Amino acid sequence: MALYVHKYGGTSVGTTERIKHVAGKVAEARSRGDDIVVVVSAMSGETNKLVAYAREIQEIPASRELDVLLSTGEQVTIALLAMALEQIGCPAVSYTGWQVRIVSDSVHNKARIVSIDTERMTGDLKAGKVVVVAGFQGVTAGGDITTLGRGGSDTTAVALAAALKADECLIYTDVDGVYTTDPRVEPRARRLDRITFEEMLEMASLGSKVLQIRSVEFAGKYNVPLRVLSSFKEGPGTLISYEDAKVEEALISGIAFNRDEAKLTILGVPDRPGVASRILGPIAEANIEIDMIVQNNADDQTTDFTFTVNRNEYRKAFDILEKTCQSLGGRQVTGDDKIVKVSIVGVGMRSHAGIAAKMFEVLAKESINIRMIATSEIKISVVVDEKYLELAVRALHETFELEREKLPSTH
Amino acid sequence: MALYVHKYGGTSVGTTERIKHVAGKVAEARSRGDDIVVVVSAMSGETNKLVAYAREIQEIPASRELDVLLSTGEQVTIALLAMALEQIGCPAVSYTGWQVRIVSDSVHNKARIVSIDTERMTGDLKAGKVVVVAGFQGVTAGGDITTLGRGGSDTTAVALAAALKADECLIYTDVDGVYTTDPRVEPRARRLDRITFEEMLEMASLGSKVLQIRSVEFAGKYNVPLRVLSSFKEGPGTLISYEDAKVEEALISGIAFNRDEAKLTILGVPDRPGVASRILGPIAEANIEIDMIVQNNADDQTTDFTFTVNRNEYRKAFDILEKTCQSLGGRQVTGDDKIVKVSIVGVGMRSHAGIAAKMFEVLAKESINIRMIATSEIKISVVVDEKYLELAVRALHETFELEREKLPSTH
Repeated sequence: MALYVHKYGGTSVGTTERIKHVAGKVAEARSRGDDIVVVVSAMSGETNKLVAYAREIQEIPASRELDVLLSTGEQVTIALLAMALEQIGCPAVSYTGWQVRIVSDSVHNKARIVSIDTERMTGDLKAGKVVVVAGFQGVTAGGDITTLGRGGSDTTAVALAAALKADECLIYTDVDGVYTTDPRVEPRARRLDRITFEEMLEMASLGSKVLQIRSVEFAGKYNVPLRVLSSFKEGPGTLISYEDAKVEEALISGIAFNRDEAKLTILGVPDRPGVASRILGPIAEANIEIDMIVQNNADDQTTDFTFTVNRNEYRKAFDILEKTCQSLGGRQVTGDDKIVKVSIVGVGMRSHAGIAAKMFEVLAKESINIRMIATSEIKISVVVDEKYLELAVRALHETFELEREKLPSTH
Repeated sequence: MALYVHKYGGTSVGTTERIKHVAGKVAEARSRGDDIVVVVSAMSGETNKLVAYAREIQEIPASRELDVLLSTGEQVTIALLAMALEQIGCPAVSYTGWQVRIVSDSVHNKARIVSIDTERMTGDLKAGKVVVVAGFQGVTAGGDITTLGRGGSDTTAVALAAALKADECLIYTDVDGVYTTDPRVEPRARRLDRITFEEMLEMASLGSKVLQIRSVEFAGKYNVPLRVLSSFKEGPGTLISYEDAKVEEALISGIAFNRDEAKLTILGVPDRPGVASRILGPIAEANIEIDMIVQNNADDQTTDFTFTVNRNEYRKAFDILEKTCQSLGGRQVTGDDKIVKVSIVGVGMRSHAGIAAKMFEVLAKESINIRMIATSEIKISVVVDEKYLELAVRALHETFELEREKLPSTH
């Protein structure tokens, strides 16, 4: 008898009909003799409705109160799913975050889970019940409600799987797995049977929005095998686990991209120690998240400093940067909010030289100008003009033969 | 400096605009230097929406899960009201039932409050904050969410006022006080400045739906002065407190009525000890609430037994009663779901004979046939045909001169 944690997102529980459908799937899994804990999100649209209410009332909603408000979304779903399970003869019990002591730190709106008390849940499982837990929420040691931030229900599922030592954490979503790239951009994109945590991390952070990045980190840290699969369509999905000998050894597992980027450059800043922090400090203080950072020394005395931010924050970041430029005695601030980032990801590239060269060669052949480059051990990202996105993705997909199933090999 | 508990019902917080309006009223009260605790209901329509969801999923929703579901309604309101207060510069903090340990018994859907932990609230009040508490909900000692049943937010407000030793509990609603009778039936109905707890209890239970009966009981028990007033219109409302020398001493304070009644009679039942419980037992087991009960001995051997139930449960009660009739060897079951109850209420009648006679005389003069009579110390109720409701109320209102303001007198 195994223990599985299932997680169903907002679309999967978007109507009472869909909640009944989920109950059917959970009851079926339970009938195979396994213990099941289900984590659910708010019904799709609910969270946005609540946020809209808050904004009607307060320009920047008080963060503590926003958590009190938003956590009701998941609470509605757990009650309805427990009812749906009971209705089809499957004993079930629902719990909010505070009821199973999903204790978090007190950073409202993006809290981190500190500990989980599994006692109540294991008691219910032993009694033959399905345990339904609200995703996305926790409680501080002092008894305040917190939320884990967008996508936080995935994190809840993984954290519960880790705490309960579950055999697998199944993330049901509206896609049937992780693909080599976005099928809307490259129709020949292929579902991967397996992918490593590290690859998934790079894919997730780069815009393959299947899984929330923190949940993958968490799963990797506690070695919880994670499976992404569809709640509407049968199929094995994609298993995310640690690399092992049997994993298909492709050089590249996938191509991720991010359309929401904008690029800012401060030119001719006197090159002194601490200049990077003086440039990025005010940006960070304004709560603007920075993605890629590149620094070029223009000459001996000055340096050019470039970074990317979310396109929504381009204007705000630009204004801050102009002030910084003045105070640092820089020459000029330039920027471009019509750029995208395209990345190739794969643990295989660790042991293979020449991947980067091959990538740049393909792009050159298609006359795509590279505006920025950043690399990690298992990822190479380039920034290109927005208009080249599709072309770049398709050319790379073909070059690295991602449409073909790879058999395990020994190179 | 005084401490007031304010309670705003669903209509008063039905939109974000109205929540802002409530925030304005609360901040104004706070600015007079008093400590304020606010109890709120779910935004109007929310509870019904949630109940509809539950019914779509489960015929009879699991009671524990229904409480998890319904308690989200008030949780939304507390967060929004706290935000609205912060927005206008009035420091505020919101609490759910479990957060301030409104501990209840574990009778889901109609739990009773056992204790309240005031420590957190008094700390916040001392720190100058307005405390916003979710009405209608509690938590069991074991950590399960409960609700107090319909109108339970009033009970929460009174219980908090008692626990905090508040100077007054102000119930803001969509009417501007307690009237001598329903103004829609008798346009000359008059707002009462004061009424006693006992009178209010009789008025509430008889269908003057201004206040939930349990909250009045509670207020009486803990001697919390209760004021009913409008959240839309300025005015003193009606103060509900213990009778004191200065209270206007009317014979009759008001006329209550209830349109939702149905009457059932079991005829010719052998008159043995225990027959009443054998008749009412199965009704109670089916969770049907009984209002009036009258028993007439038809002869030495048999008895006729009549009671009233809510009209919605007439059919169900009838079926149960037919089975009981068979097993008890009764003659026949009859019933009527086109009846109403009309009651006159007043502490003044304690010391005045002839009130009942006067009531019956008025009804007789209008040719209204009385189908049942029940009396208590401060109330006389009659059941009449539905069609006579308005006529009966107006005739009684005039006879007992309720449209006239009474001055304190010494009789």
